Amino acid sequence: MTLDAVLSRIDTDLDAATDRLRDLLRIPSISTDPAYKADCDRAADWLVEDLASLGATAEKRPTTGHPMVVGHIGDGGPHLLFYGHYDVQPVDPLELWDRDPFDPQVEDTPEGKVIRGRGACDDKGQLMTFIEACRAWIAENGQLPCRITFFLEGEEESGSPSLIPFMKENADELKTDIALICDTGLFDAKTPAIVTMLRGLLGEEVTITAATKDLHSGMYGGPAMNPIRVLSNIIAGLHDETGRITVPGFYDGVPELSDEMRAQWQGLNFDHAAFLGDVGLSVPAGEQDRTPLEMIWSRPTCEVNGIQGGYTGDGFKTVLPSKASAKISFRLVGQQDPHAIRESFRDYVSSQLPEDCEVEFHGHGASPAGQMEIDNPAFEAARKALSDEWPNPAAYIGCGGSIPIAGYFKTILDTDAMLIGFGKDDDQIHSPNEKYDLSSFHHGIRSWARILDALT
Amino acid sequence: MTLDAVLSRIDTDLDAATDRLRDLLRIPSISTDPAYKADCDRAADWLVEDLASLGATAEKRPTTGHPMVVGHIGDGGPHLLFYGHYDVQPVDPLELWDRDPFDPQVEDTPEGKVIRGRGACDDKGQLMTFIEACRAWIAENGQLPCRITFFLEGEEESGSPSLIPFMKENADELKTDIALICDTGLFDAKTPAIVTMLRGLLGEEVTITAATKDLHSGMYGGPAMNPIRVLSNIIAGLHDETGRITVPGFYDGVPELSDEMRAQWQGLNFDHAAFLGDVGLSVPAGEQDRTPLEMIWSRPTCEVNGIQGGYTGDGFKTVLPSKASAKISFRLVGQQDPHAIRESFRDYVSSQLPEDCEVEFHGHGASPAGQMEIDNPAFEAARKALSDEWPNPAAYIGCGGSIPIAGYFKTILDTDAMLIGFGKDDDQIHSPNEKYDLSSFHHGIRSWARILDALT
Repeated sequence: MTLDAVLSRIDTDLDAATDRLRDLLRIPSISTDPAYKADCDRAADWLVEDLASLGATAEKRPTTGHPMVVGHIGDGGPHLLFYGHYDVQPVDPLELWDRDPFDPQVEDTPEGKVIRGRGACDDKGQLMTFIEACRAWIAENGQLPCRITFFLEGEEESGSPSLIPFMKENADELKTDIALICDTGLFDAKTPAIVTMLRGLLGEEVTITAATKDLHSGMYGGPAMNPIRVLSNIIAGLHDETGRITVPGFYDGVPELSDEMRAQWQGLNFDHAAFLGDVGLSVPAGEQDRTPLEMIWSRPTCEVNGIQGGYTGDGFKTVLPSKASAKISFRLVGQQDPHAIRESFRDYVSSQLPEDCEVEFHGHGASPAGQMEIDNPAFEAARKALSDEWPNPAAYIGCGGSIPIAGYFKTILDTDAMLIGFGKDDDQIHSPNEKYDLSSFHHGIRSWARILDALT
Repeated sequence: MTLDAVLSRIDTDLDAATDRLRDLLRIPSISTDPAYKADCDRAADWLVEDLASLGATAEKRPTTGHPMVVGHIGDGGPHLLFYGHYDVQPVDPLELWDRDPFDPQVEDTPEGKVIRGRGACDDKGQLMTFIEACRAWIAENGQLPCRITFFLEGEEESGSPSLIPFMKENADELKTDIALICDTGLFDAKTPAIVTMLRGLLGEEVTITAATKDLHSGMYGGPAMNPIRVLSNIIAGLHDETGRITVPGFYDGVPELSDEMRAQWQGLNFDHAAFLGDVGLSVPAGEQDRTPLEMIWSRPTCEVNGIQGGYTGDGFKTVLPSKASAKISFRLVGQQDPHAIRESFRDYVSSQLPEDCEVEFHGHGASPAGQMEIDNPAFEAARKALSDEWPNPAAYIGCGGSIPIAGYFKTILDTDAMLIGFGKDDDQIHSPNEKYDLSSFHHGIRSWARILDALT
């Protein structure tokens, strides 16, 4: 049987597949920092070459930012698109890494082998699961069972500024029967998952200016407005005592969870004490009338991702700074409108400004939440294929993170998207010491082989 | 007449005196940053050599931090001590300087010539006014009219950790009839001043830790506590709506201004609109029932001098940081007890912490406010000498900054201290583009010659 032979080849080829992943992880393709522009380009080249080695017609396609990698292979059968991203998060604080984040190695841990390095999980390890499944299938059968378009992005960690224009301009090429996206996680080590609910993301950078220059707090301390104090007041006012966000109109379009979905989630027996305990926390800090799973999957948030003002070096400097700034993001759900919330947030901040202060806003990404169409029979087919590979049956779940592209496939290309990934909660994505379990990598590759078989 | 000859020599020698000051300014003696330790040492050596050139017995005296410079010269007449500090503030943000802060130059400005560079005013330019007055006096008369002890510190900008132990260990050597301190300003360009009221300073660094590591806001945003939010809430709570500081017991020991002093200050016709307008502000931001002069001279403050947490580089990173920290300082007046306020502040912060957060405190300097004894006849003698040099009569004023040593002369050595300086409000001390007017330097040197004459 074809599938068994492919799975067997995947098992045999795992070491070589791991070496290929390490090659890709060595490229520091940090998309948010302009200093790494050439490295992003290099990662795209690596992927073009790897896809070409499968027999795909692949090329690097320019954008105003980092390039897209687009490849096509196969014919006949359904037409599938696979999406992943080759860019990675910044690595600071570097001193908290146990190793060079761009010198990846396989390490033995009490929970099994892992490959450690920036991007090991998010998203280079994940995207390679699909490519390796294709490689094994072709090696075993000479060709794929269907037509596949690869669509690999290099700006996912910096708000995907080129994505919508590129999808619009290349709609005919990218429109397929279904899109497969590998950038999500397992529900737990034994339970694979298909994400059907994704939070959106809105990013805002706020800079408050008071005096025209830094002042000496001995000379001006008292009569001069301190922008850090102003910014702190604004941030403190973003939540009320129950954890609700105060920006006017913020909850417009936030749906209540259906009783059916709530019951299904309760059935997952999510261990929120362990989830928080793993990172040294114990008390769910969000809206106090919601469960932790709701807080992550179906409720919106407002977070300060960074704050800076005044003197932050060693020692002390009695400066009254001229400026203070914060990076603030909102996770969005349901029908929340990121553009309306951006305006309302800016109005709120402006309304809180003392007379002598000015504010400058810098908008980052704005993507709405996504809801997948599980009526498409591909969902049940994939769910069954995943259930065959893993100890527990696959679950339909929510995801707290933002993968804006899932929504764009629907709105721009009218293509349903299916989010399947093999990350684990302890993979430390966006943090120091990111890793990907070799078992995620191995069973991830096998999962895609089963899904290719099930969808064709 | 002796004094006239000295004043005339000061006028003639001004260019050479300016060159000597530039030599001293070239040494980047930033005391708060350990990277500049050797440069602090070099500045001390420069001063030892310069005092020796006057005929003083001068030496660098070790401390656990940066060295003290102590020199003695002259005999007969009263015994005066002169205090200044050779260390300077850090220079960041460096990009806001119009020139290398340690390559000082004389520049023509619409208001006259200035010497620009870090420390030009605070305090290298100021301390050299006294040394240059002595140099001119000696050059003209072969000797000084009295006995003088020079006492030059290298840790003033980093909380003077060695000062009290050194003064105690060397009390016999440093006890004099009066101490002269040159680290303050003119009241305005035409009005010299003797500072009789100084605010104290208390510094605290607060670090809040929530999770044990940085988290991904997609995965943990909602249930995980954000330490920037906690810190912002704490900072926002430090002032009430009227600008009063909320730390319990904070106002214990804050005296009401006497009617006499209030009347005298009103007579100065302080132009607070211009004072604030110079730095782009218009509304006094302190306690709303106080005048701006009171806010600066006789009321305590709480300021955030720096804040930092999460990702602050280019672009955006959806991180939920593990830690956030702030540098917070209090300006103190009257009998406020810095140690009691430190404890009360720490109790307040701890009481505001959510269950999952921890706080770490790092104490910086703690010095009480100072009140000078103007009954000492030296005060009136110096006031008259200053009035002879400048267009307007000299005033007794307050000072918003902290010069802890003024109080230590009284408490440790039982020596009255007199604070006379020639800085201007626009000297940009502690800020980019610090400068010292050549007229401050010139008339400052002349003022000290007149004061030496008046006190002997």
